[in-house]
Amino acid sequence: MAAIANPDFATEVRSSFERQGAMKLIRADLPVVEHGMVEIHLPHWDGVEQQHGYVHGGVIAMIADSAAGYAAMSVAPPGTSVLTVEFKLNLLSPADGDMLIARGTVLRPGRTIIVTRAEVFNVCQGEHKLCAVLQQTIMAVADRSEK
Amino acid sequence: MAAIANPDFATEVRSSFERQGAMKLIRADLPVVEHGMVEIHLPHWDGVEQQHGYVHGGVIAMIADSAAGYAAMSVAPPGTSVLTVEFKLNLLSPADGDMLIARGTVLRPGRTIIVTRAEVFNVCQGEHKLCAVLQQTIMAVADRSEK
Amino acid sequence: MAAIANPDFATEVRSSFERQGAMKLIRADLPVVEHGMVEIHLPHWDGVEQQHGYVHGGVIAMIADSAAGYAAMSVAPPGTSVLTVEFKLNLLSPADGDMLIARGTVLRPGRTIIVTRAEVFNVCQGEHKLCAVLQQTIMAVADRSEK
Amino acid sequence: MAAIANPDFATEVRSSFERQGAMKLIRADLPVVEHGMVEIHLPHWDGVEQQHGYVHGGVIAMIADSAAGYAAMSVAPPGTSVLTVEFKLNLLSPADGDMLIARGTVLRPGRTIIVTRAEVFNVCQGEHKLCAVLQQTIMAVADRSEK
Repeated sequence: MAAIANPDFATEVRSSFERQGAMKLIRADLPVVEHGMVEIHLPHWDGVEQQHGYVHGGVIAMIADSAAGYAAMSVAPPGTSVLTVEFKLNLLSPADGDMLIARGTVLRPGRTIIVTRAEVFNVCQGEHKLCAVLQQTIMAVADRSEK
Repeated sequence: MAAIANPDFATEVRSSFERQGAMKLIRADLPVVEHGMVEIHLPHWDGVEQQHGYVHGGVIAMIADSAAGYAAMSVAPPGTSVLTVEFKLNLLSPADGDMLIARGTVLRPGRTIIVTRAEVFNVCQGEHKLCAVLQQTIMAVADRSEK
Repeated sequence: MAAIANPDFATEVRSSFERQGAMKLIRADLPVVEHGMVEIHLPHWDGVEQQHGYVHGGVIAMIADSAAGYAAMSVAPPGTSVLTVEFKLNLLSPADGDMLIARGTVLRPGRTIIVTRAEVFNVCQGEHKLCAVLQQTIMAVADRSEK
Repeated sequence: MAAIANPDFATEVRSSFERQGAMKLIRADLPVVEHGMVEIHLPHWDGVEQQHGYVHGGVIAMIADSAAGYAAMSVAPPGTSVLTVEFKLNLLSPADGDMLIARGTVLRPGRTIIVTRAEVFNVCQGEHKLCAVLQQTIMAVADRSEK
């Protein structure tokens, strides 16, 4: 990973996360913000379930997309907004545990295009099991004011 | 599209949708269930927004994934559960309108693997604009009891 | 589709295609170049087969990626190079016919990012069957000289 | 990774690779076949180039798809055929080196669905640089006779 482009990356990432109504809605939390690596945690509660009682694949996409996007933001220059161009998500096993951990990392930092990855772990009685993987393309845009 | 495999497909799809806590949480609705085509509508409210005030890409994934998955279910035999193996979503333009319409259709029905597509339209003052496209792989599983 | 940005798009696309050693190698042809729609045709011969005697999924990716990329080029300003950022390909049925037709189209033209789609048809005794679908992200770059 | 399901996996993988006309055509080689990890190497020559003189993205897809698919085959029971359901490829940087190494690994072995990943390295004067990443879904089919 290259040098840190934004010394205040953690503050900017946390402040952006706070402005996301959707993250509040699903009760997601942002306990880890490192340079090039971000974790979002989600408790398993009935508001995020699909019809079998597992966490909904789209909700898994929400936390994986956000974790990977914020990992991209953590390596970008100050004031950069990160927009998801696209992502692809594979669901590997049912999200039937107590909580989920989505860990986003950066595969290729770039000025315009940043390629990232997220791994989502299903935590069940303290055991972590890989339950989803995401591959994502981010566009970095300078000076786009947030809400 | 082949013949209808399940005469009660609409009832089964609606009943499965009702069991999804996540669809309730984001206030999604299921106004259209046809053979091979399903629509999910979502009002734009602050609980589904990301940091720029647009609908969160992951929420768009939720409704697109569900619409495409239910399109798959509508062409499957009675009692089939549909599991999302994976999907890929491209976000084309900001979801800044009044509501979103996710329309899922079936590209290839199969006994085990069903390939689907969803298009998501941003509705702004009555105008529809394509804002996201999803390509999805579904696994059909017989007799998996829902929640 | 918007107005034509490059009146010579067909000449530029054909000239770029001619410079692709890989297209010659697999014996691909470019019979259709329209504004926003390009077709690449591929005869089924043993040099493009995988282990079951069908056309290799990666070869299908080659023609689908190229057809979609040239569709993007056809809507871009003169002198634009199109770079594939990423694509996703679903293989729907075995490519066991006499030839393949990959048809690329543009979903969303943009200044920097162009989102495209390709459909690949397996042609067997004159019948066309959809055998693969691709969803692609292209980056448009001005003035990048080709080989 | 689980126990070895097929003691002859390396022989079966190599024998399948030999039957692929497309791998011969592009001059790909299979120097590494381990349980759950397979490498395909490709020399950079003009027959695999696109219009800028780099290795064609579709050719990169060919070796990445095959390396990941054979990684899946290496963990499957004897006599299993592996079919690519779909894959997604991100191209990170131009393949302008002397050769490419595609390394396929298994993310989740399953009886029917195997999820894999491939990383492709651009080798330039002995240095390895990550130039592409692939995420893939494989369907395992028993007793499908190869060509």
